[in-house]
Amino acid sequence: MVKIAPSILSADFSKLGEDVKNLERYGADFVHIDVMDGMFVPNISFGIPIIKSIRPITKLTFDVHLMIEEPSRYIEDFVKAGADIITIHYETDRHIDRTINYIKSFGIKAGIALNPATPVELIKHLIPTLDMVLIMTVNPGFGGQKYINYCSEKIREVKELSNKYNKELMIQVDGGVGKENIKKIVECGANVLVAGSAVFKGGKIEENIKALKEEI
Amino acid sequence: MVKIAPSILSADFSKLGEDVKNLERYGADFVHIDVMDGMFVPNISFGIPIIKSIRPITKLTFDVHLMIEEPSRYIEDFVKAGADIITIHYETDRHIDRTINYIKSFGIKAGIALNPATPVELIKHLIPTLDMVLIMTVNPGFGGQKYINYCSEKIREVKELSNKYNKELMIQVDGGVGKENIKKIVECGANVLVAGSAVFKGGKIEENIKALKEEI
Amino acid sequence: MVKIAPSILSADFSKLGEDVKNLERYGADFVHIDVMDGMFVPNISFGIPIIKSIRPITKLTFDVHLMIEEPSRYIEDFVKAGADIITIHYETDRHIDRTINYIKSFGIKAGIALNPATPVELIKHLIPTLDMVLIMTVNPGFGGQKYINYCSEKIREVKELSNKYNKELMIQVDGGVGKENIKKIVECGANVLVAGSAVFKGGKIEENIKALKEEI
Amino acid sequence: MVKIAPSILSADFSKLGEDVKNLERYGADFVHIDVMDGMFVPNISFGIPIIKSIRPITKLTFDVHLMIEEPSRYIEDFVKAGADIITIHYETDRHIDRTINYIKSFGIKAGIALNPATPVELIKHLIPTLDMVLIMTVNPGFGGQKYINYCSEKIREVKELSNKYNKELMIQVDGGVGKENIKKIVECGANVLVAGSAVFKGGKIEENIKALKEEI
Amino acid sequence: MVKIAPSILSADFSKLGEDVKNLERYGADFVHIDVMDGMFVPNISFGIPIIKSIRPITKLTFDVHLMIEEPSRYIEDFVKAGADIITIHYETDRHIDRTINYIKSFGIKAGIALNPATPVELIKHLIPTLDMVLIMTVNPGFGGQKYINYCSEKIREVKELSNKYNKELMIQVDGGVGKENIKKIVECGANVLVAGSAVFKGGKIEENIKALKEEI
Amino acid sequence: MVKIAPSILSADFSKLGEDVKNLERYGADFVHIDVMDGMFVPNISFGIPIIKSIRPITKLTFDVHLMIEEPSRYIEDFVKAGADIITIHYETDRHIDRTINYIKSFGIKAGIALNPATPVELIKHLIPTLDMVLIMTVNPGFGGQKYINYCSEKIREVKELSNKYNKELMIQVDGGVGKENIKKIVECGANVLVAGSAVFKGGKIEENIKALKEEI
Repeated sequence: MVKIAPSILSADFSKLGEDVKNLERYGADFVHIDVMDGMFVPNISFGIPIIKSIRPITKLTFDVHLMIEEPSRYIEDFVKAGADIITIHYETDRHIDRTINYIKSFGIKAGIALNPATPVELIKHLIPTLDMVLIMTVNPGFGGQKYINYCSEKIREVKELSNKYNKELMIQVDGGVGKENIKKIVECGANVLVAGSAVFKGGKIEENIKALKEEI
Repeated sequence: MVKIAPSILSADFSKLGEDVKNLERYGADFVHIDVMDGMFVPNISFGIPIIKSIRPITKLTFDVHLMIEEPSRYIEDFVKAGADIITIHYETDRHIDRTINYIKSFGIKAGIALNPATPVELIKHLIPTLDMVLIMTVNPGFGGQKYINYCSEKIREVKELSNKYNKELMIQVDGGVGKENIKKIVECGANVLVAGSAVFKGGKIEENIKALKEEI
Repeated sequence: MVKIAPSILSADFSKLGEDVKNLERYGADFVHIDVMDGMFVPNISFGIPIIKSIRPITKLTFDVHLMIEEPSRYIEDFVKAGADIITIHYETDRHIDRTINYIKSFGIKAGIALNPATPVELIKHLIPTLDMVLIMTVNPGFGGQKYINYCSEKIREVKELSNKYNKELMIQVDGGVGKENIKKIVECGANVLVAGSAVFKGGKIEENIKALKEEI
Repeated sequence: MVKIAPSILSADFSKLGEDVKNLERYGADFVHIDVMDGMFVPNISFGIPIIKSIRPITKLTFDVHLMIEEPSRYIEDFVKAGADIITIHYETDRHIDRTINYIKSFGIKAGIALNPATPVELIKHLIPTLDMVLIMTVNPGFGGQKYINYCSEKIREVKELSNKYNKELMIQVDGGVGKENIKKIVECGANVLVAGSAVFKGGKIEENIKALKEEI
Repeated sequence: MVKIAPSILSADFSKLGEDVKNLERYGADFVHIDVMDGMFVPNISFGIPIIKSIRPITKLTFDVHLMIEEPSRYIEDFVKAGADIITIHYETDRHIDRTINYIKSFGIKAGIALNPATPVELIKHLIPTLDMVLIMTVNPGFGGQKYINYCSEKIREVKELSNKYNKELMIQVDGGVGKENIKKIVECGANVLVAGSAVFKGGKIEENIKALKEEI
Repeated sequence: MVKIAPSILSADFSKLGEDVKNLERYGADFVHIDVMDGMFVPNISFGIPIIKSIRPITKLTFDVHLMIEEPSRYIEDFVKAGADIITIHYETDRHIDRTINYIKSFGIKAGIALNPATPVELIKHLIPTLDMVLIMTVNPGFGGQKYINYCSEKIREVKELSNKYNKELMIQVDGGVGKENIKKIVECGANVLVAGSAVFKGGKIEENIKALKEEI
């Protein structure tokens, strides 16, 4: 069952509560939460206080994507703020087995994100212990970029590893996902799709989610 | 004329637009915006997208306090997001004359913040070129701390420098400011007072601002 | 011939000389020396002065495992302190061919350690020039962890590379090694086994080493 | 009352327990513990496991001098290992008011160390809240250096601040202290004297401590 | 068609203009420009002002090899100084897809350099989008080193990828290239050869280039 | 006796030897050599190979201004390349007493540079041991900036310290120095004046030096 994970980076932060409630109402599966620290990626988005403020108003899964340096420093804070899944970047942690276990020790789910050029082989030993792999199909830190085609191959590689070693693995794709390519991405093996403007554009959350779901 | 600068770090981020409108309605002078990157301070608060989203809904001065590493990297982004004043930390910039001039080159105002233990003398040469000095009276990165008493002396030192070299200087105080001490702080020389929970507590923005203003 | 390399991290530092003499007396092959700097790993263990002080009292091979940032800065100091083998972490050195050659230029042996999740392929070009590969089977920096099972596969991969390109290669395993699994680990291809509490527990060095050797 | 704080960096680490017991037996007041991480200073000395191993064998005050980056990361570990006083370097912490309070929150004493060239004025606001100021009279990280004469002036400055704001302040001096200059240093205002080789040289701890005490 | 790219690191910087003119006159194809920042590599060579000063005096392709940290910070400056090709190190950039695209956005060519031990697989996804791959056959930062033999295998691997995915790819080799091995290197698949002392030795640029070209 | 120290950053690097010979011929006292690493300052200028290449062609004093991170790493290399004076930035070295002594241990002269906003008091203890203090009167890393007026006060402060503690001290000023202000700067106490475009503009080195000297 393919899931839609709207990224609130494209929401209206002056009425975030309302937008989040609409995501729930109109069938989003996850709330995708893009935390950027201005160090690992060239943008400072938002962090703990924003997550805390919307936690009481929805039961949707909070899928927190940490684009930050040395993420192990903040795992506990994000768990307390209400994260259900925490995904860290392979490129930010040299003790990634340790951090993945640390996330899971809080009873929540753990994932690893890979930048576009980072090969899937680098995380092969961890596949059985992960809940999610996030294939970045744009370079993190920027919005409005186009899907990078060579990443489709990486989705297929993760799918293969999932078939062999971890059938429950969530395979998430983030970047340039829209009506025009969502079907193809799902065919590569993705089962959780992050969408930003594709969900929030024109303020028509209901319509947009519906359109995405129809394509799948 | 003493100004009140409510920090939106204490606002409700699920309805930030509404809170900001109330700040304007009930007589706040500035919107104080605490940007934390999780590197200079042990918290990730929020950044550019949040500022952008509330810029269209108020004409209040956006007073952006950057608690981030190497702030010169993001000055332009914060200006574009709508900052009217940008304050950087002395402790984060070894080329602080350059960054202050860089901020001012965009036609906005520039300030320097000092951590509690950082002596005022360290910025003495810059006093005539600054628009604001921010005396931190708690350690940045945490909420709910108590006003550090020895910092009153630092406010008086800035006031003296202001009298001598820069009569227009805004002297801002941030940390543990409330009804019980606001008068004393103003007497030391402060003319812009940041208040978080003192403004937002109980959701009674109108009452709280009024109470603070009456104390002054 | 399989070697036992007791890690003095589990010794009693109030009488280290005595412990080290017992290691020699009771048949240890190497003294495994875990240097941690609190930067690469979350613990500060010990460094140069400790090694110097025990060098005169034993002829055992000093097998120094550097869990430190940019290890090339300290190679010469550790050689002078009495190291016979220096192992650096793949994850700490971007010029690893250079550092390996630098270690060997002092006439001592050189090894590379891999964190649990780091794939063996990343050092494939260096296998012929190395004296040792250290497969970490726990996350470095902590004691008392359990052997990570997926690392057995990595030991086998190194063994295969050793068979092809470097028959003399020492294949060292560090982490969670004990009586209950030492045989299995040797069967995977390991020929140098680090043991901490398995050697020092109960202060019964003689017995413990004997028990490990019998299992092999 | 002037105190002697022998630095175990000059002890024999093959029989550290014995040396420490002798320090207690022959009248040392503190055990001075020099922790170096190879990042802030160009040497890796020792850390937590060494302190733990000698904690049970003496009741002497453990005076831990952290020459490490971002010391706040390890305060709790050093407290648990048995520190009675923790001193951090001004040059390693931009949030030094916070870290000093953090140390004191564990119910132990807190100090700040200053490198030779670092002016005393930089910590003037903290004098009333400190338990100790450590004036480095050699550059940290190296042994066997000569006392830097210009630092006597700094001891006098701290003494003056102590007279005004904090009569209980311990004023510690570390570097090149010996029989030939100890009296002069005490006259400047020092009341805790770190001595390495001056205490341990020739293995004559009893004699050496006596000689130092007689000079005072 | 194999190209010769003399590295001006071996030129005489007191008369660089003259040396560069001679490179053009005697048939060099590229001017190879080794920028070292003393951070990524242990040497500070030269940067923007040197490149600017020789840009007006030759039409040769400026092939700029950046051995610097976070190269994306300086791409625009090097383009403006006159670079025709910019090569960055895999080991210095965690967002390497982004930086490659950024270089190409200026209308110039982009390459990736690999340190000797860095496997070719790590950049496999980028091969189709690259203009050049630079196989370092010595450790960057030092002159006068010998060609590392195991790197021949890496040249062959790049050649194979080039045959499959990008026939136009320039395959550059840098380090220890001379008359004695240039033929063998070309047979592995290299088509751009960096040469330093092999071109400038004895000041006989004409002869030296001729000798290299004859070998191919 | 006031000295002129032309900065070769404004020379023509295609014929640097010729420019340097002209400096000697037309009465320059020092060759000022601005080394920038792109980390401490936002520009990469040049380093060791350039200095080496011009060392044989002049007897002028090589006055090397290191605008680089952790300068102690490269002191020996710059001494070997031919430096007669090495100046490091206060802002780049936390062990500045040690580095100053290290420079002097090679038998050459040592200086400290201060960024525009850095107060002179911070180096007060070192004044007696220094050969030079360099007051930056523009922000380092950029050319073509205007002299910052508040820095005149800093020159006067250094002059006063020199009168008291070190009559031989060289007081160097760098940034925006020209015919129009050189006299005023000398009156503040400067005795070594760095000049870039003021010496090299229009290629008229002879005339320009003469004009500067006449003003003094």
